[in-house]
Amino acid sequence: MRKILQCSFVFSFLVFVDLYGVAAAQTAPFSSPGMQVDQSHTALVITDPQNDFLSPKGAAWNLVKDSVAENHTIENIELLLKTAKKNKFKVFVSPHYYYPYDQKWLFGGAMEHVMHDIKMYQRKGPLSLEGFQGSGADFLDKYKPYLEDGQTIITSPHKIFGPEANDLVLQLRKQGITRVILAGMSGNLCIESHMRELIEQGFEVAVVHDATASAKINGLDGDKAAKTNFRMIANASWSTRETIEKMKSIQR
Amino acid sequence: MRKILQCSFVFSFLVFVDLYGVAAAQTAPFSSPGMQVDQSHTALVITDPQNDFLSPKGAAWNLVKDSVAENHTIENIELLLKTAKKNKFKVFVSPHYYYPYDQKWLFGGAMEHVMHDIKMYQRKGPLSLEGFQGSGADFLDKYKPYLEDGQTIITSPHKIFGPEANDLVLQLRKQGITRVILAGMSGNLCIESHMRELIEQGFEVAVVHDATASAKINGLDGDKAAKTNFRMIANASWSTRETIEKMKSIQR
Amino acid sequence: MRKILQCSFVFSFLVFVDLYGVAAAQTAPFSSPGMQVDQSHTALVITDPQNDFLSPKGAAWNLVKDSVAENHTIENIELLLKTAKKNKFKVFVSPHYYYPYDQKWLFGGAMEHVMHDIKMYQRKGPLSLEGFQGSGADFLDKYKPYLEDGQTIITSPHKIFGPEANDLVLQLRKQGITRVILAGMSGNLCIESHMRELIEQGFEVAVVHDATASAKINGLDGDKAAKTNFRMIANASWSTRETIEKMKSIQR
Amino acid sequence: MRKILQCSFVFSFLVFVDLYGVAAAQTAPFSSPGMQVDQSHTALVITDPQNDFLSPKGAAWNLVKDSVAENHTIENIELLLKTAKKNKFKVFVSPHYYYPYDQKWLFGGAMEHVMHDIKMYQRKGPLSLEGFQGSGADFLDKYKPYLEDGQTIITSPHKIFGPEANDLVLQLRKQGITRVILAGMSGNLCIESHMRELIEQGFEVAVVHDATASAKINGLDGDKAAKTNFRMIANASWSTRETIEKMKSIQR
Repeated sequence: MRKILQCSFVFSFLVFVDLYGVAAAQTAPFSSPGMQVDQSHTALVITDPQNDFLSPKGAAWNLVKDSVAENHTIENIELLLKTAKKNKFKVFVSPHYYYPYDQKWLFGGAMEHVMHDIKMYQRKGPLSLEGFQGSGADFLDKYKPYLEDGQTIITSPHKIFGPEANDLVLQLRKQGITRVILAGMSGNLCIESHMRELIEQGFEVAVVHDATASAKINGLDGDKAAKTNFRMIANASWSTRETIEKMKSIQR
Repeated sequence: MRKILQCSFVFSFLVFVDLYGVAAAQTAPFSSPGMQVDQSHTALVITDPQNDFLSPKGAAWNLVKDSVAENHTIENIELLLKTAKKNKFKVFVSPHYYYPYDQKWLFGGAMEHVMHDIKMYQRKGPLSLEGFQGSGADFLDKYKPYLEDGQTIITSPHKIFGPEANDLVLQLRKQGITRVILAGMSGNLCIESHMRELIEQGFEVAVVHDATASAKINGLDGDKAAKTNFRMIANASWSTRETIEKMKSIQR
Repeated sequence: MRKILQCSFVFSFLVFVDLYGVAAAQTAPFSSPGMQVDQSHTALVITDPQNDFLSPKGAAWNLVKDSVAENHTIENIELLLKTAKKNKFKVFVSPHYYYPYDQKWLFGGAMEHVMHDIKMYQRKGPLSLEGFQGSGADFLDKYKPYLEDGQTIITSPHKIFGPEANDLVLQLRKQGITRVILAGMSGNLCIESHMRELIEQGFEVAVVHDATASAKINGLDGDKAAKTNFRMIANASWSTRETIEKMKSIQR
Repeated sequence: MRKILQCSFVFSFLVFVDLYGVAAAQTAPFSSPGMQVDQSHTALVITDPQNDFLSPKGAAWNLVKDSVAENHTIENIELLLKTAKKNKFKVFVSPHYYYPYDQKWLFGGAMEHVMHDIKMYQRKGPLSLEGFQGSGADFLDKYKPYLEDGQTIITSPHKIFGPEANDLVLQLRKQGITRVILAGMSGNLCIESHMRELIEQGFEVAVVHDATASAKINGLDGDKAAKTNFRMIANASWSTRETIEKMKSIQR
């Protein structure tokens, strides 16, 4: 790996662990590899920028609203979209839609059941837009100027949490993208599954940790889990501010 | 979905949320869909039962040893193996090996760098076993009677955290397995990535939350993150004791 | 493998090859493993039942019309749909759509270029149906009663030839399907890529060799190539007549 | 797509088709998009360069020997390896191995059954090399200097025909490879499935049509089927001679 300088800190940390054991391991920092940003090979990917998460009338609003407020998620996603468009980064959206036959799946995990039960992302069918406009499945109004400009690539819907069952990976590859700036909803479910899958597919991924938010439910803090795993797994876990600085600076 | 009885609790909870909002959301339980267990369609899958994690001489021992102690991971994995074999469940192992050319990868995420830097799971090559016996990459001695009985299916190595780049999914399908009991190392990295990918591939997954353990490093608690996500994502998050009871009971 | 009886013929053939070499290899039959058919685990999957292939006004009609005529493809697909619906088999469609940004892909293979150049499967966007009705991307009118009955599962579009970038595999798994009867357009491109991918994902696949058709172009006979590979790769390569008999007989 | 010049021929051909119909379609050439070759982003990928296919004592020799002779496959693969190494192209091998538990798969397609029945690629297990040296599963002796030089990346085995269940895609991505020169055994099975899957994963692929060979069995000509599909699907279908010229020329 190319990490001569950036990882010297990790090396010294690891020697330290080896000599002094777990106390050191629990207190010493470990460094992020970082990720380069350029317009040719880097894209902004947004998952689920939809009313069901980000509008007070959305089906999952109550599950995520505390985390949305803490992270300033709504504003931060908009800042990312605005900066990407202004600086000519390609933007991809991986949305989440469910059709009537998805309600008849024979099995599913815990939050899958919740998504179906509270009727998130409902559409009449893949070839119907009846009732879609302004629904929980639709994009947040304030994002539409960025998402519906004819340039943003809107992939097929992911169906559980990750992009395994849609065309995000292919669309990125067909545009020459190898590095992804990842943001959107929700943190420990769709963002984290997108992060993990993109990394397994050989992309570099920087997650914007405050341009997402997660459910807090039954004593479980999805936001904290997500931020832990972003730090451990991604190439970088940046704030919106840091991300914007990087996107702007390459223009100079 | 088939959830007539099992999910009535979720339904009542969700009505509750709708009426009373986030305070309810944060305190009311949400239920697990659960998972049936039978020998024909259910298998035990163990990730990384290797010395680098589970032996005090292992390369990553210092990162996980607190969590290993808290969860009684070593004993619990053995209990699962013993119970599975005694009750004729199929057992699959998804191991982790790195070869010299993997050290030359051009990029990687944070814990990927750590794994390469501390030289985890090192082997001389895919067609060499020189120095393998008893190394960090080898299985824990106490598990070998179960793993090397000629019946346990040992897949090709996963290469980051999930099974996307090995034959686990295919091996499960070719044996008619549709439900996975998942345990092994480490919780928020390989177990969680296996859980997420298997679910995206249409399996039902029950994670054994105390037959795994995770790194605690730099203020990040991988074990807590993992347990949060097991609860939210899997079909079930069981203790070793619960899992063993289920595996035994179908024999009666 | 379970093939005690069904493969005895293969065994005797192979002994024969071993003794008498290539002359035997080129003349002796090799047997098909076959595939069981039942409504719970077997589904009909149709790819690209769209005007661009099957209507004389379609963009690719000239490339495939000879093969369509020879195979009686249009009628055979309808017979399969009718039989499947009447006998309560689940039906899945994996369609092919291209959006304006797909035209900007940076690279592609030979027939990919052709598909873009002759403007196959064009839609205005994933969230627009403007101009869709009756277009080359739309379903053949005579199939619509079967495909738009609210029961047929229409997956997201595949984007090259196989289902790697859509949700077909997941939708099949979520409905408990493990065996696929595969038909549709075109034979050596989308059908063959679907057959290969479904088999790699651990499904059993029977291809209906005359409910498909392929391009004949520049001395290349896609239909012959497809039929060769169906025989060598699938669990079974059936005629429409044989397939219908199997689907009907399980009702008795 | 960027094809301004290279595809003008396709455009004129297609206009021709539109005006004059199928007669034109069957006689006019359609062009290949071609593929650039450079050492940073282009690699040579060889599938199954193993005795079972390429040695007269190999288990499948009788099935492929006519095609091997016609294509000069053995020499051509060696020429590619030699040229790649001399000109500093990265080389990847995707081998094929079966272990005892693979013999117990519950189902499989036609040639899958044949592979198991004639005991191709047999090894004692993934962690055993007992009896491997010189066996049908081992590499052809004359290729070993190239494949065992410590630089060639040997992936985990593919298990049916494509690379879906091994780490080839990840290994290519982790080395920055986006274009693949593909050769090896056998043409309409593993090479074609590798070609299709790599293209679905967003790689450019040039197949070397005479550095492969295919089974001819029971009146089925795998070589012809493969060559048809290489022409229709890949970015380019080159002879060994053409491929070598391209690899050499970038050195000048």
